[in-house]
Amino acid sequence: MSSLEKMPNWLLNRAYLTPNRKALVFKDKELTFKELCDYSLSMARKLTACGIKRGDRTAVLLNNHMDFVLVLYALQLIGCPVVLLNVRLTNRELAFQIDDSEAVHLITQMEFESIAVKLNGQTGIHTIYKEQLIAANEVDFEIVTEFNLQDVCTIMYTSGTTGFPKGVIQSFGNHWWSAIGSALNLGLHDQDAWLAAVPLFHASGFSILVRSMVYGIPVILFEKFDEQQINLALMEGKATIISVVTSMLQNMIRDLGEKTYSPSFRCMLIGGGPVPLSLLQVCKNKNIPVFQTYGMTETASQIVTLTPEDSLAKLGSAGKPLFFCQVRIDKDGVAAMPNEIGEIVVKGPNVTYGYYNREDANKRSFTNDGWFYTGDVGYMDEDGFLFVIDRRSDLIISGGENIYPAEIENIILSHPAIKEAAVIGMDDETWGQVPCAFYVVANNAEISGEQLAQFCQPHLAKYKVPKKWIQINELPKTASNKVMRKSLSKFLS
Amino acid sequence: MSSLEKMPNWLLNRAYLTPNRKALVFKDKELTFKELCDYSLSMARKLTACGIKRGDRTAVLLNNHMDFVLVLYALQLIGCPVVLLNVRLTNRELAFQIDDSEAVHLITQMEFESIAVKLNGQTGIHTIYKEQLIAANEVDFEIVTEFNLQDVCTIMYTSGTTGFPKGVIQSFGNHWWSAIGSALNLGLHDQDAWLAAVPLFHASGFSILVRSMVYGIPVILFEKFDEQQINLALMEGKATIISVVTSMLQNMIRDLGEKTYSPSFRCMLIGGGPVPLSLLQVCKNKNIPVFQTYGMTETASQIVTLTPEDSLAKLGSAGKPLFFCQVRIDKDGVAAMPNEIGEIVVKGPNVTYGYYNREDANKRSFTNDGWFYTGDVGYMDEDGFLFVIDRRSDLIISGGENIYPAEIENIILSHPAIKEAAVIGMDDETWGQVPCAFYVVANNAEISGEQLAQFCQPHLAKYKVPKKWIQINELPKTASNKVMRKSLSKFLS
Repeated sequence: MSSLEKMPNWLLNRAYLTPNRKALVFKDKELTFKELCDYSLSMARKLTACGIKRGDRTAVLLNNHMDFVLVLYALQLIGCPVVLLNVRLTNRELAFQIDDSEAVHLITQMEFESIAVKLNGQTGIHTIYKEQLIAANEVDFEIVTEFNLQDVCTIMYTSGTTGFPKGVIQSFGNHWWSAIGSALNLGLHDQDAWLAAVPLFHASGFSILVRSMVYGIPVILFEKFDEQQINLALMEGKATIISVVTSMLQNMIRDLGEKTYSPSFRCMLIGGGPVPLSLLQVCKNKNIPVFQTYGMTETASQIVTLTPEDSLAKLGSAGKPLFFCQVRIDKDGVAAMPNEIGEIVVKGPNVTYGYYNREDANKRSFTNDGWFYTGDVGYMDEDGFLFVIDRRSDLIISGGENIYPAEIENIILSHPAIKEAAVIGMDDETWGQVPCAFYVVANNAEISGEQLAQFCQPHLAKYKVPKKWIQINELPKTASNKVMRKSLSKFLS
Repeated sequence: MSSLEKMPNWLLNRAYLTPNRKALVFKDKELTFKELCDYSLSMARKLTACGIKRGDRTAVLLNNHMDFVLVLYALQLIGCPVVLLNVRLTNRELAFQIDDSEAVHLITQMEFESIAVKLNGQTGIHTIYKEQLIAANEVDFEIVTEFNLQDVCTIMYTSGTTGFPKGVIQSFGNHWWSAIGSALNLGLHDQDAWLAAVPLFHASGFSILVRSMVYGIPVILFEKFDEQQINLALMEGKATIISVVTSMLQNMIRDLGEKTYSPSFRCMLIGGGPVPLSLLQVCKNKNIPVFQTYGMTETASQIVTLTPEDSLAKLGSAGKPLFFCQVRIDKDGVAAMPNEIGEIVVKGPNVTYGYYNREDANKRSFTNDGWFYTGDVGYMDEDGFLFVIDRRSDLIISGGENIYPAEIENIILSHPAIKEAAVIGMDDETWGQVPCAFYVVANNAEISGEQLAQFCQPHLAKYKVPKKWIQINELPKTASNKVMRKSLSKFLS
């Protein structure tokens, strides 16, 4: 007779339980949960007036802004699954996702008008600009007062290193458990405030909104990443936790110089790819509490995080699973031994039900008893700590030996003259493949490939040291800031 | 493809995730999660050697002790639902619960040997004394590595208006959500430690064990309540949170005098009945952070708790629901208005599936959509704060123990000299309330209160035996022949 599957609407519930707590800070505006709820209800009535009704799959193409939050919460109040679009994508990529997700409305902003007009032409989607909504009527609607944890909350597309992007279905339950797992791992303090400078359309950003509602803590929302402003906020104690990716942290550390963060700052949550050991070491020296995490869109953000007591002893590890999650390493269909490299396989209530309309991919990636094959490569050490080596597709095989680019990149990046580096496989008559390195120098430094190879030699087996070195001005990256290794290969021909 | 219903065994998981964190402190012993897990596995192997196997419903009759914890965790590792028996009950009461719950093993201690021997005679239950286990063999068994949240974790008995106790089925999910709801409300700090001086066989005590495993924090376990020792522990900062009932807090405050607790002490969680405003005021003046809560065995401890920001403005309120719980007031079948008194009705994933083998009671108390009629009386103010007026019409709460008049009346009425009997609560400085009996003799029989008390003793736990006996000519009754308990109370003043 218990009802595990339903719970009160998170925002309505916060407006009831803790109406006067701070909920959202954006530029010079601050909203309590009561105010945020009232604004979101107003936004929902306006969207209703524009024709949006319960069950309508609605795509959103917006920059980080208070309005983005209101739109998202309004859609939850109406009861619309949301397709979160990445603003850095091209027209073609967006049109694909709109078609593929079968979204019927698009909420965007005038800044993206030319794109939106094209999208409308390509897909016929009904478009609403947030700027129109200011003057819109308000029409009452039936408010969703309870969330069913099985229901679709969001759909986010994976960057798709292999083939076409896939829509990851994220249920309310996925997001809920993600928030709970994070709290059990990082703790929850009265004065907590989470700084969001990552995009709200990614799992890393959206999950901050969920945590805000579930924990009853404020989101300190930034329009875009600005290391000076963010460092200022952290020095002034305006946030206790921030979510970052490596490149953000590097810029923040560079800007921070000799200054230090407020003692109330307690968690630098870093995800979205491997973190160079050299950067972790700098943070350790500066007493910056870095929590390395491993997660993906399919796990609604973190699934593995390094706990405070292990952050120093296990530098470079992604840590251990969230409390109710499980992780194992699969090597050719059987469980790998400690320290043996294989595919990372995960399980937990934060893991997606699957990709939208992708039966084949779902069959490939999910087992009947709830395990998800991530496609990522790593190992567990004898203490059960996960070390993420690389994305499987990047694997370089040379003379029968497996080479994982990230391992080499870590070494190159630890050289003070290097700003960015990426390693890919290069065809080789003798060995099949050999590694080739692309690098970007820091501050106009001058360094040759020969010097770098020499620098690597003490750290790497001979077959791992790149055989070719190419200096470039900037690494090509995807909209979500992942290095496009495939585009690098054209430099080789 | 997600698996909401299963998660790793809590203790095994803690031994993996945070092996070196402190898990249990008892007297001068301290165990880490790794040690606690190893000891519990050893205990499980011993219990296996004694014939306990997966699925065996096992009753436990033990005093608070490290061994009690090991037995409970061992039974979870083997996979046995546990019937938690109150050590203050009489033989007859215990025999009823063992029969009713269909338990096949009893784990107890030599201190209760005479009771256990009788129980074995009455019910034929297989008995194991914890003292025997020290020298027991260890036999391997198939460890339960995953908990199914739907499975029965514990059964705890509550009495009720009918007088016959009912076994409350508490699933792993009920306990899990209770722990999560508490964390979202009270927060979770690295240095947290929860002091347990309430019995582990009650929801208040057992829930501390669950929180310890789910949060990864230590339990500071006390054999019994001792205000001097507990005050010392809180002054020395050995615990940050403690669960108490009113009579405990009163004794603690009296003993504390002008001294103060460590600044790290952050939560005095008080439940199990009404708290006098005068006591709350004293605590406010002494800056003791009192969190008043409302809960019951059926909700696996708290369901409503006063959050920090409201604790002063709403003195006397039990607060607002845990995040995923809902509370409403039912007045004659419809929702009550703010400030209107009615029956308290609750819903949430921490609420029991129902009473074991009590179809009628389940039909009466649970709706199909998950609401539980508590039988308690209260109101919600215009801000949605719950005020509990009265527990289950005539419930007597004495030192945190629930006493149901009907149970006592049934015993008194079984005496041939008695025609009518009614039991009500009488104010008591030490215990809050103690039971007082009114009786009418049959056929001019002569019998004293002392004789009746003696008659009750084999049937009733000591705290249930009325402390005052008043003979009257007739019980005051309503037109529909119900005893007017309220009119009886005037005899007490």
